[in-house]
Amino acid sequence: MFVEIYYTPSMIKPIVQTDVPPGFIDLGTGNPGLDLLPMDMIASAAERYFSAGDCRTLQYGAEQGNGLFLAALADLLTTKFGFSVAADKLLATTGASSTLDLLCTLFTQPGDTIIVEEPTYFLALGIFADHHLKVHAIPMDREGLDVDAMEEQLPEVKPKFVYTIPTFHNPTSTTLSAKRREKLVNLAQEYDFIVIADEVYQFLAYNEELPPPLAKFTDQAEQVVSINSFSKILAPGLRLGWIQTHPKMISHLVKCGLLESGGGLNPFTSAIVYYLIESGDLAENIRMLHNKYRLRLEAMASALDRYLPEVEYLQPQGGYYFWVRMPEKDTLQMRKLIRQKSVDFRPGSLFSSQKAMKEYIRLSISYHEPEQIERGIQLLALSLREQ
Amino acid sequence: MFVEIYYTPSMIKPIVQTDVPPGFIDLGTGNPGLDLLPMDMIASAAERYFSAGDCRTLQYGAEQGNGLFLAALADLLTTKFGFSVAADKLLATTGASSTLDLLCTLFTQPGDTIIVEEPTYFLALGIFADHHLKVHAIPMDREGLDVDAMEEQLPEVKPKFVYTIPTFHNPTSTTLSAKRREKLVNLAQEYDFIVIADEVYQFLAYNEELPPPLAKFTDQAEQVVSINSFSKILAPGLRLGWIQTHPKMISHLVKCGLLESGGGLNPFTSAIVYYLIESGDLAENIRMLHNKYRLRLEAMASALDRYLPEVEYLQPQGGYYFWVRMPEKDTLQMRKLIRQKSVDFRPGSLFSSQKAMKEYIRLSISYHEPEQIERGIQLLALSLREQ
Repeated sequence: MFVEIYYTPSMIKPIVQTDVPPGFIDLGTGNPGLDLLPMDMIASAAERYFSAGDCRTLQYGAEQGNGLFLAALADLLTTKFGFSVAADKLLATTGASSTLDLLCTLFTQPGDTIIVEEPTYFLALGIFADHHLKVHAIPMDREGLDVDAMEEQLPEVKPKFVYTIPTFHNPTSTTLSAKRREKLVNLAQEYDFIVIADEVYQFLAYNEELPPPLAKFTDQAEQVVSINSFSKILAPGLRLGWIQTHPKMISHLVKCGLLESGGGLNPFTSAIVYYLIESGDLAENIRMLHNKYRLRLEAMASALDRYLPEVEYLQPQGGYYFWVRMPEKDTLQMRKLIRQKSVDFRPGSLFSSQKAMKEYIRLSISYHEPEQIERGIQLLALSLREQ
Repeated sequence: MFVEIYYTPSMIKPIVQTDVPPGFIDLGTGNPGLDLLPMDMIASAAERYFSAGDCRTLQYGAEQGNGLFLAALADLLTTKFGFSVAADKLLATTGASSTLDLLCTLFTQPGDTIIVEEPTYFLALGIFADHHLKVHAIPMDREGLDVDAMEEQLPEVKPKFVYTIPTFHNPTSTTLSAKRREKLVNLAQEYDFIVIADEVYQFLAYNEELPPPLAKFTDQAEQVVSINSFSKILAPGLRLGWIQTHPKMISHLVKCGLLESGGGLNPFTSAIVYYLIESGDLAENIRMLHNKYRLRLEAMASALDRYLPEVEYLQPQGGYYFWVRMPEKDTLQMRKLIRQKSVDFRPGSLFSSQKAMKEYIRLSISYHEPEQIERGIQLLALSLREQ
């Protein structure tokens, strides 16, 4: 026997990145709850994939991605957005993080300056640090990135790219207004920088109509790269996402060393997910998520209003996050005591490239059921009263 | 209905990276033949995976990789190598190309010098170019990289890393001798550079015993990073591989921005491949490949001896490649005429960072059956006689 399995359970290392132990309520994590991961739906797609038995999907894949997958995805986006999306504007990726990493490699050099929102997705900052980029922060308000403030600073800052999360921003849940989107793109053309739009939450609109996605502007501007993921609408473990951008940018990307060497980034998984898109299962899953998340969002809002009336937040209309201001609190300090109650959040300072945002916390509706969300906020309030 | 499929077959883009049309014999491609991709075996593993139904494998994964997968892989390597490999020395990746890309990001800056073999894997050069690295080439002989020649140049060159393919080298099929392996590692420690050992062909030894893998030296040296892949022993489309290195290096890698943000690199696929390892199916597949490739290797050698007695080559003992010298030919020029016969190879100059190697061609046994290999060499010879 070639393989002999002699490890014991005690030697087994974790499977998940962020472990939420039983009984613990992590109101901070941006991971979806395990109950929201549609194992059966993926199994059914995989069954259809294996029945079709197309060995080409196990080969080094076309650099841009599996053509069937891209065509089905283009149709999905066309229906979702209400304007035509052609497959030649899409490129299959292994998710938003690795896309960001690739774009940093291809479009920056150490010492270059980039612009991020203040606050921003904290783990993107780690990727930028690995590429030795200088991070320049621009404040946000209720309409998202303050594009006017940015405009004033552009001549001096000369960013290589602006990294923005325009829809249901992480962590603030704000959505960049239509007017600002247009202005941002115009500025990108005028000052010759790339707009990296992290649009991974755009499918999670529970209540409102959204302004056009940044991806829409890829019709007119080569500088706009919309990065997207199946992590928020299907399952993070698939490590599958896509870029939507101008065909000229696609032509440039497919010639990079990584794609020429390894071929398409996720041929096997994308060939399975094709069946999820084509069957309508993905759309059904998104509807299921909307229904679940809408209830969780209401639960979070009413628990906050009930147990923590002194805090300030904007009611999110989609995505995962409540960005909560706790006046005069140092939330990083607060966290240590809160965790003793088996509750957690993410302190605002995590999301600040300026070491600010100390009065804020990020709460998320992604992981827990409404009952746990309410219980978590209750415990959070209790702990605060005791401090 | 959310999704409406309205594309037609004519709009469908390619699935594979390198298309080999029916009737065409591509003796150059390093892709495995489609008939060698074990769809049924993977389907069977996927069935077991979905039956187990562990939703955690669809979550953001542990940065180092799925613990079950790593433990099973450690056992496989322990059996294969004959020395103990612990799971804490392994990290799951999305294959050799993206691993190389990640290592460039983490350990180099533009303008840094690295050392490659002359000739080397040509597509790695594209990745190095994207990172703006200066490539310094060291010649090879029958025992692989000329480590003595390298030693002389180290004080001046000061490489950040040496990229080597120590076993069944691409394109030369040479294997670095045990003595040179040891010296290479000693030099890495003395001159403080990383050894990136691309060991993707090491499981494909058809005849001979191999010297210890470079991975073996990770016990003693933190500077050795062995990069590996399932592309040559299972299926490239899975985009799954692993790093074997010192636990200290693993600890460093798991803290990089990409892994902290996106979590483990391929949780879903590695959870399926776990079942292939655990069941012994992977080992069986490797045995099948050995049997097939051994026959192809013999077919290639006898066809060369029969139809092209004037060329020079070393008989490979494993891997994919014949590195064939055609005295006084310009093989880049030759290629145009050869392709008119529906046959192809890869010209030697592709593999040279020095624009040399013009008399050489790379032939591969990976894609075609013995009969096609023979026919391809026959056509190649015919075309040469006509030129």
